[in-house]
Amino acid sequence: MTSAGRLEDPSPPSITDPAAESPAPRARRLPATTDVSTAAMQTRRQRLRDDGYAIDHLAGSSAPPEPETLAGNIEGFIGYARVPVGIAGPVTIRGAHARGDFFVPIATTEGTLVASFQHAFNVMNRCGGVAALCSEEQVGRAPCFEFADVHEAGAFARWFPTQRDGLAQVVAGTSRFCRLLGLHTSVIGNTVYTRLEFSTGDAAGQNMVTLATQAACQWLLTQMPVQPRSWLVESVLSGDKRASALAFRDTRGRNASAEVVLPAKVIARYWRADVDAMTRSWNQALIGSAQTGAVGLQGNVANALAGLFIACGQDVACIAEAVVCVTRCERTPAGDLYASVTLPNLIVGTVGGGTHLPTAQECLGLLDCVGTGKAAKLAEIVAVTTLAGELSIIGAMASGAFAAAHAAGGRKGRSAQDPAVP
Amino acid sequence: MTSAGRLEDPSPPSITDPAAESPAPRARRLPATTDVSTAAMQTRRQRLRDDGYAIDHLAGSSAPPEPETLAGNIEGFIGYARVPVGIAGPVTIRGAHARGDFFVPIATTEGTLVASFQHAFNVMNRCGGVAALCSEEQVGRAPCFEFADVHEAGAFARWFPTQRDGLAQVVAGTSRFCRLLGLHTSVIGNTVYTRLEFSTGDAAGQNMVTLATQAACQWLLTQMPVQPRSWLVESVLSGDKRASALAFRDTRGRNASAEVVLPAKVIARYWRADVDAMTRSWNQALIGSAQTGAVGLQGNVANALAGLFIACGQDVACIAEAVVCVTRCERTPAGDLYASVTLPNLIVGTVGGGTHLPTAQECLGLLDCVGTGKAAKLAEIVAVTTLAGELSIIGAMASGAFAAAHAAGGRKGRSAQDPAVP
Amino acid sequence: MTSAGRLEDPSPPSITDPAAESPAPRARRLPATTDVSTAAMQTRRQRLRDDGYAIDHLAGSSAPPEPETLAGNIEGFIGYARVPVGIAGPVTIRGAHARGDFFVPIATTEGTLVASFQHAFNVMNRCGGVAALCSEEQVGRAPCFEFADVHEAGAFARWFPTQRDGLAQVVAGTSRFCRLLGLHTSVIGNTVYTRLEFSTGDAAGQNMVTLATQAACQWLLTQMPVQPRSWLVESVLSGDKRASALAFRDTRGRNASAEVVLPAKVIARYWRADVDAMTRSWNQALIGSAQTGAVGLQGNVANALAGLFIACGQDVACIAEAVVCVTRCERTPAGDLYASVTLPNLIVGTVGGGTHLPTAQECLGLLDCVGTGKAAKLAEIVAVTTLAGELSIIGAMASGAFAAAHAAGGRKGRSAQDPAVP
Amino acid sequence: MTSAGRLEDPSPPSITDPAAESPAPRARRLPATTDVSTAAMQTRRQRLRDDGYAIDHLAGSSAPPEPETLAGNIEGFIGYARVPVGIAGPVTIRGAHARGDFFVPIATTEGTLVASFQHAFNVMNRCGGVAALCSEEQVGRAPCFEFADVHEAGAFARWFPTQRDGLAQVVAGTSRFCRLLGLHTSVIGNTVYTRLEFSTGDAAGQNMVTLATQAACQWLLTQMPVQPRSWLVESVLSGDKRASALAFRDTRGRNASAEVVLPAKVIARYWRADVDAMTRSWNQALIGSAQTGAVGLQGNVANALAGLFIACGQDVACIAEAVVCVTRCERTPAGDLYASVTLPNLIVGTVGGGTHLPTAQECLGLLDCVGTGKAAKLAEIVAVTTLAGELSIIGAMASGAFAAAHAAGGRKGRSAQDPAVP
Repeated sequence: MTSAGRLEDPSPPSITDPAAESPAPRARRLPATTDVSTAAMQTRRQRLRDDGYAIDHLAGSSAPPEPETLAGNIEGFIGYARVPVGIAGPVTIRGAHARGDFFVPIATTEGTLVASFQHAFNVMNRCGGVAALCSEEQVGRAPCFEFADVHEAGAFARWFPTQRDGLAQVVAGTSRFCRLLGLHTSVIGNTVYTRLEFSTGDAAGQNMVTLATQAACQWLLTQMPVQPRSWLVESVLSGDKRASALAFRDTRGRNASAEVVLPAKVIARYWRADVDAMTRSWNQALIGSAQTGAVGLQGNVANALAGLFIACGQDVACIAEAVVCVTRCERTPAGDLYASVTLPNLIVGTVGGGTHLPTAQECLGLLDCVGTGKAAKLAEIVAVTTLAGELSIIGAMASGAFAAAHAAGGRKGRSAQDPAVP
Repeated sequence: MTSAGRLEDPSPPSITDPAAESPAPRARRLPATTDVSTAAMQTRRQRLRDDGYAIDHLAGSSAPPEPETLAGNIEGFIGYARVPVGIAGPVTIRGAHARGDFFVPIATTEGTLVASFQHAFNVMNRCGGVAALCSEEQVGRAPCFEFADVHEAGAFARWFPTQRDGLAQVVAGTSRFCRLLGLHTSVIGNTVYTRLEFSTGDAAGQNMVTLATQAACQWLLTQMPVQPRSWLVESVLSGDKRASALAFRDTRGRNASAEVVLPAKVIARYWRADVDAMTRSWNQALIGSAQTGAVGLQGNVANALAGLFIACGQDVACIAEAVVCVTRCERTPAGDLYASVTLPNLIVGTVGGGTHLPTAQECLGLLDCVGTGKAAKLAEIVAVTTLAGELSIIGAMASGAFAAAHAAGGRKGRSAQDPAVP
Repeated sequence: MTSAGRLEDPSPPSITDPAAESPAPRARRLPATTDVSTAAMQTRRQRLRDDGYAIDHLAGSSAPPEPETLAGNIEGFIGYARVPVGIAGPVTIRGAHARGDFFVPIATTEGTLVASFQHAFNVMNRCGGVAALCSEEQVGRAPCFEFADVHEAGAFARWFPTQRDGLAQVVAGTSRFCRLLGLHTSVIGNTVYTRLEFSTGDAAGQNMVTLATQAACQWLLTQMPVQPRSWLVESVLSGDKRASALAFRDTRGRNASAEVVLPAKVIARYWRADVDAMTRSWNQALIGSAQTGAVGLQGNVANALAGLFIACGQDVACIAEAVVCVTRCERTPAGDLYASVTLPNLIVGTVGGGTHLPTAQECLGLLDCVGTGKAAKLAEIVAVTTLAGELSIIGAMASGAFAAAHAAGGRKGRSAQDPAVP
Repeated sequence: MTSAGRLEDPSPPSITDPAAESPAPRARRLPATTDVSTAAMQTRRQRLRDDGYAIDHLAGSSAPPEPETLAGNIEGFIGYARVPVGIAGPVTIRGAHARGDFFVPIATTEGTLVASFQHAFNVMNRCGGVAALCSEEQVGRAPCFEFADVHEAGAFARWFPTQRDGLAQVVAGTSRFCRLLGLHTSVIGNTVYTRLEFSTGDAAGQNMVTLATQAACQWLLTQMPVQPRSWLVESVLSGDKRASALAFRDTRGRNASAEVVLPAKVIARYWRADVDAMTRSWNQALIGSAQTGAVGLQGNVANALAGLFIACGQDVACIAEAVVCVTRCERTPAGDLYASVTLPNLIVGTVGGGTHLPTAQECLGLLDCVGTGKAAKLAEIVAVTTLAGELSIIGAMASGAFAAAHAAGGRKGRSAQDPAVP
């Protein structure tokens, strides 16, 4: 996002006319997704296995890992919480990194959620799929240093940027993947708040940058002309696990967008609404959102984030920051509907953290996002899924079905109806 | 929080001197919490079973539930994501609802997290336990109504509050538990944004209030002198699943506080720091936090919320809003340390949603929070656990151990060291 | 805005079709508003005098007031800053309180500002004038009380609302105009933050509510079952002179909206743009605004507020809070443009503060807003003027003239061109 | 603040021990500042004239400027609003740019305001004066460009930073003072939001950067490989005239800090309070502030900003953004009180805008801030004055005098008492 950040430079995707209706995706939809019977579940599992996906751990037919393999992930371990996983898809993505048809795993207990993604994926496929772009990545840490007074602080703030080469070398020594991208400072009275921005490969990278920053600070202390009175390796300024607007200025994690153009007739068919009803409803919602003082403009991306993060072994606490995003829903000059979601604060990884756990590996496998070289791809898929959620909400608003959807399927013991249009 | 909200009126707890060191809690700590071996895990499980807790589903010795039991919770179901659960505790709580010693289940893959809660619980117990109070509860929905112009909108805004009795009756007809607590309106040009606040018993209540609001709107439409041009049952103004300051004005979910006073010698023993280092570090962090523009003032409550929400079958997406809170860390006139966390936006329930799932029932069982009459208790335990997390962070800042802790235990394949002081 | 707030209940205005083009207002425009010569200024002054307006102090032909008359307004007084005042208008307002044609005084040194209001007023008049509504008023103070622990705090929070009658009596004793409207509390650890909401007649009311709250607190201290450890008469929670979203929940000051519907042909004539260009530009701007994390959604209402506040003797520091508002700019089903501004945090008064100063009295006189019974009217005029500013910005964006306007008239020594269309 | 920003590099000031009480400043206080009589005013004026300050326009003894001199500042001009100006001071400043004793002009109608600054200046002088630092300056504009889809947008975002040299040349051609400092981009669906950061010499610079950005955009359009569908020269993302946290990341305007250390005995003498009461009160206030969701942490800096901005011909609407700041109030290890204010979003200038007006020139003259080379100095004086305001509030809170102060002097017709301690 900044000139200092690492700009992704993918080979250009072939761009087709997104507004044209296209044929159904090559991958087949899972059968009977709203049938809650054991038999229907078995059919879905078989279909996935037939398509070559490994789901034995999700299905419970493989034993969970030994406790010893959880070293570094947890203490006081006594067992596993089991969270139901549903599959929506396929969705056709025309991303810079994610290209093709994808089945998306969602871990949730909120009824109608998976069905709503399925419905929106169907719409998206009908519109030629979803364009997606992970445009940048970086993760920061923010040490602060207290000095005797504001003038000493100012002197440090002027000196600090001159140490970039030395700092870069120290950082590179802490990890094969961690690289220093940028330095920033601000003087707050006698204290200098700094930020160090890093690239972290395909890891979410929070621990990696903590270690790198610790090393950087220790080295700085040996170089500083005047020692600080006190310092913190992380002053909370990084934005870790809280919603802030700062990621709109400097990407935190990955910055990913997804977009789709919906022709008027598709809207009529899938939501019995029109473009004006969609944009009017969304305008009303964003004026409502503005009154909350919440950062960003969005309907409900938290559900998609939670569903994917739990399934894929991501740091679930990062939902708190990842919800900061912008959803757009606008009438095009041609009278169609343009919709996009941009997430500038997406902390996701395909290595490290909880990604090695068997069910996470299987969910990442469904997305072809296992291991190195896949984090930007995962970010694009997350953006696409949040866009599906937003379209579902806007469509429900426009068709007046918001509460009705909850009534039909959102409570225990009732089953959701398949959305009317296949 | 408002005069209209339902004020909890518990029988008064006996208040002991929180600053006095007290004997160890009656419940025994689990053994060897940082030993990752299978044998150690088995010992921990046995201890919990000996104490009367059911953990067969967590332990994997009971079969997961049939797909049919998930009707209303998920579609496209194919299996379960397994998230590791660790236990920290016991922690002694002197709450209005939660009283006694509690083992707290945390579902996470972030190394050192459970150990850090354990360390803080040890500190808290040494200080006589933690005071806690769930002081209020309500959940809102925010329909909006568009009229021909601002004068029609103004007329509706004046008429709407006069319909309170009729609305209360309609709402009460939608659920045994749902009750209307208050009405609010604001005129935004030709559109009136309203809020209806409800009590929802021991459910988190989001679906319950959606259904009640839908019924209320349908009834209103039959009563309104002038029909709206358009309306939404939820305009996003409710604050659902996004961080906003509004809950500081009107509680959203439960409002719960936890507090503890730490004598100087306890701080010295457990963190090799002093009160001044604790408050100075925290001041530096909250000035850092202020610079992010994030709502509230806190270090990292998202980790505790995520760990408890996944374990206990809560709506994980609500982490996005629950992180809005205030952590205090202050020197008392007597030279001790006062610390508290207040969460005014805590969407938790002990019935409904995902709480019926077996591993969630077991985790709620560890907290004696199964079923009706327990939601306020759960809210207090959540507040206590977030306070433990905050104290760990502040202690680590003060003792310079922030990064070191990550280095020792936060990465795969290394084991966390038991905090030095038992 | 809340059910507790004082809802304005004006006699209903006659509502005409706002989308119809109407004849020019009865009042005549001032001549040659962009002619900077002394002669042109004299002509403008004469026209205002002919219309019966007093402007001798603005014109400098009356002596400034004696220092003694400034007692209670300033210390260390040595003289007066002179800020240039320009007049835009007339604008036709169809408000609940402001009805008729108004000349609006703007104190500014920002070139093109008055001309841009003039242009937008011309547009508005062409559309039948502007509808406006001041829908509610209240001002709050927020004392806090620290107790021994959270349980004592909780007990106070339950007791406090029971004292409403006594508090109302104490408050009424402090002023003829000040009345208690509502009470709120929130427990933050061992401290209870309260809010008292008041009506303050036609004064802005900040001093009035401070005195009332001081008296209320003193009385409370004589009634409280348990004395607080410490307390503040104002904990900053009131939102005084800072931008916060709280006024969207509970009005702070006055809540005023202004709205207009612009037919496509008017947009074409006055901005050489169309409805789509207007809404597209505004959408781009509000997505930009969302990325700043600023509260509310608006283009630049601060200019109108500053110009009116300085001219009319308002508390200029309150611009900091009054900028929190929502601007809407939407395509109607009929293909016209709906635009509105709502200011829920408008601290204005027509008595007290600096309103008695001679040039303020003259500026208020231009608006027929002198003295009691006029504050809601002033609030509506402020809303109309901010809407004019927003329309100018959106129009300039849509016609690509944003920077060009600055180039032509925004720098010293160049004269602004009269907007092309009269 | 960023590595890209222009770091001020002043020659280092001599730093004395700020905690030591020092002798009174060389400059003498104005006599009888709370005496409202004409005679007392005349005495104050004479003293200032004796000290060599020009105040004829403030005093009304020089004629206001001809209308023709206001070309570029206003249209529809009819005369001048007169705003009372009071003087507080002297205050001793040990800044990087502002060094010596200063009389500060405040334009206000809020009683007790000038007296409260005077009281705090007395305290500050007793503590050896105030350290101050303007550490950085830059002003931004934020054009946006809409493309066909997210992939075209991504391509532009990668291309844009490569044009830096060309852009810098275009920018330099628009003004002697305007220089391009940095470029930033973010992809939001099919639209790229950019920011250009500039240095603007001693001007506030908003018009200067608008013109530069307009030229930059026009040049870009001739260079772009793919033309945008639409674009705006300013997308509101710059943060102009609204409160946002972005300035904490990248300075907007000037970033200035002021700080002072107050020995315990000074606090006892001037506020009849102690360090603990000061920090406790401030902690209560900042927890109150946090609940509002307002950006930054401060008590009431808007009053100082408004008073100085009106007096000194600054853009008063910029109060809306300048209030974003951080006030610190902390107990030092030695038991004294550390207090500071940092304003990272201070739009001030000493040339351009309204600074050429006679009363503004005189007020700037009181501060030795007339003309080029003085903007950083003015920024430091503003920071010092806001710190004085914050200390007054904290002191009043701590001594329980908050409301009492309003009662004594804040209402018309009563005279403020001189603060007890000289």
